[in-house]
Amino acid sequence: MTEVLAIRSDFERFDEWVEAFRESDLELVRWEDLKEGQAIDYVLVWQPNPGMFDQHPEIKIIFSIGAGVDHMSGKNILPEGVPVVRMVETNLTLGMTEYVVYQVLRHHRFMPHYEQFQRDRSWKEIMQVPASRRNVGIMGMGVLGTACAQALMPFGFHLFGWSRSEKHIEGIKHYHGPEQLHAMLSHCDFLVCLLPNTRETRHILCKEHLVHLPRHAVLINAGRGSLLVEDDLLSLLENDHLSAAVLDVFEEEPLPVDSPLWNHPAITVTPHIASMTVPETSAEHIWTNIKLYRLGHPLTHVADMKRGY
Amino acid sequence: MTEVLAIRSDFERFDEWVEAFRESDLELVRWEDLKEGQAIDYVLVWQPNPGMFDQHPEIKIIFSIGAGVDHMSGKNILPEGVPVVRMVETNLTLGMTEYVVYQVLRHHRFMPHYEQFQRDRSWKEIMQVPASRRNVGIMGMGVLGTACAQALMPFGFHLFGWSRSEKHIEGIKHYHGPEQLHAMLSHCDFLVCLLPNTRETRHILCKEHLVHLPRHAVLINAGRGSLLVEDDLLSLLENDHLSAAVLDVFEEEPLPVDSPLWNHPAITVTPHIASMTVPETSAEHIWTNIKLYRLGHPLTHVADMKRGY
Repeated sequence: MTEVLAIRSDFERFDEWVEAFRESDLELVRWEDLKEGQAIDYVLVWQPNPGMFDQHPEIKIIFSIGAGVDHMSGKNILPEGVPVVRMVETNLTLGMTEYVVYQVLRHHRFMPHYEQFQRDRSWKEIMQVPASRRNVGIMGMGVLGTACAQALMPFGFHLFGWSRSEKHIEGIKHYHGPEQLHAMLSHCDFLVCLLPNTRETRHILCKEHLVHLPRHAVLINAGRGSLLVEDDLLSLLENDHLSAAVLDVFEEEPLPVDSPLWNHPAITVTPHIASMTVPETSAEHIWTNIKLYRLGHPLTHVADMKRGY
Repeated sequence: MTEVLAIRSDFERFDEWVEAFRESDLELVRWEDLKEGQAIDYVLVWQPNPGMFDQHPEIKIIFSIGAGVDHMSGKNILPEGVPVVRMVETNLTLGMTEYVVYQVLRHHRFMPHYEQFQRDRSWKEIMQVPASRRNVGIMGMGVLGTACAQALMPFGFHLFGWSRSEKHIEGIKHYHGPEQLHAMLSHCDFLVCLLPNTRETRHILCKEHLVHLPRHAVLINAGRGSLLVEDDLLSLLENDHLSAAVLDVFEEEPLPVDSPLWNHPAITVTPHIASMTVPETSAEHIWTNIKLYRLGHPLTHVADMKRGY
């Protein structure tokens, strides 16, 4: 019997998903088009509603459309014992890599200043700083963080990493655990945060920690909005401890129209687009896991919902 | 006897040069501080004036501060038979790599649109295009062009190159000569121009050639201003054949205050800062060549002043 993969996405691209799965033997169904009592085998979902899975105890695997799984945690909405698989796919990783490299280069090369010079019709040079004199730190050295560090390496930046647990990655000075956080931060001209949203990481980007950054550091948060205390950021920008911030994620999304972040001269706001899942390449990751499941093999990238990622 | 290296730069950083040459046995002198009749052995120069070298037939090597040598050609100002060495140094190459990767990523990821969305306080996503569906072409595949192509490669862009003569570089589809230019251009969603200024390249970025780019292509010129016909660019932007242009170099520099390029919404102007020579690393290149000269060995990166680079 043909197995069913139900999809609930916030983007109108069901046809792309169908095309991406053309080599599989699955039947794809829009979640909204499921018939009363229709059984499904797998679900691919972003931000499930509470109660959404109540009528579907038969689900075998829940696939997250994003790299994080916080969008489906803590709401008691997941059926007990069903594995949740995080999205790990080439294009999602490459997208984040592009975003982080772009934002680091933008500030490394003083591009916001040059944009102002252009508006002023002013031909003015700022002495270039070699990348070898800049330190970039990454908080969260999972698949995405490691890929970003490796993409920054050829430019000659000095790289620092921080995670919950110890890691050894060639060319990166790695710190771990709460007790090493300040030591790591003290190096970072650029701090890139890619941490997941967990109980431990909530509000980790607060004044108490961020003051350990060198003066004039730049903060780039592409992890989750809940990591950052927005008021602390505003006050660190105010007293010039930080020189700029790039925010792709926010406590409340979409960012409310009256947020002071929108028109702050030192803040770049992007609408959670640092990286997007691409159906073409994601289908491979999902289909591989379904085949592993059918063979009774362990799945890859299963989330630990207690830990939160 | 101590040999003398005279320096004439447009930047006030003579002290940095002195520091950079501390391991050499050279005496460094500002060109402006030379005494009447004082002999010099080598000169490091940017935009020499006509007649500048008339009193110094003893010069052994002329070092260019920039990668190009057009700033000292065609004015009959160079002493006959003295070798001219182009600047090839790590940081000059890395600087160009940073600039090109930054500008390609900026347009690849629709960043100018997101900046407008931020000004409008509008939370709007544009569907991401994987780099694997983008073609980037580079005109001028010398040291800088090759380094830029190699830096773009890990992101997954398809790479095309064009030069005067045939080349084979792993991972790059290479075209050469005037007869293959249009074929190469027809692929390029992004066209990066790093050509030197020679008789053959003057006005090579003109309508006749640029119309062969796909519609909505983006032009990035970081070679020389003389390569581009500015009016042709404006008309190609006008009729939407090109979607944007990034210009670091101009026919007249500084760019005149009344130039229409300054406030064109689709044009980014930067003041010839894509890459700057860094004394610390340039000194190595110069010192190596001086040691080769003393030993009677051939120099590296000698410019062919007839060819123009």
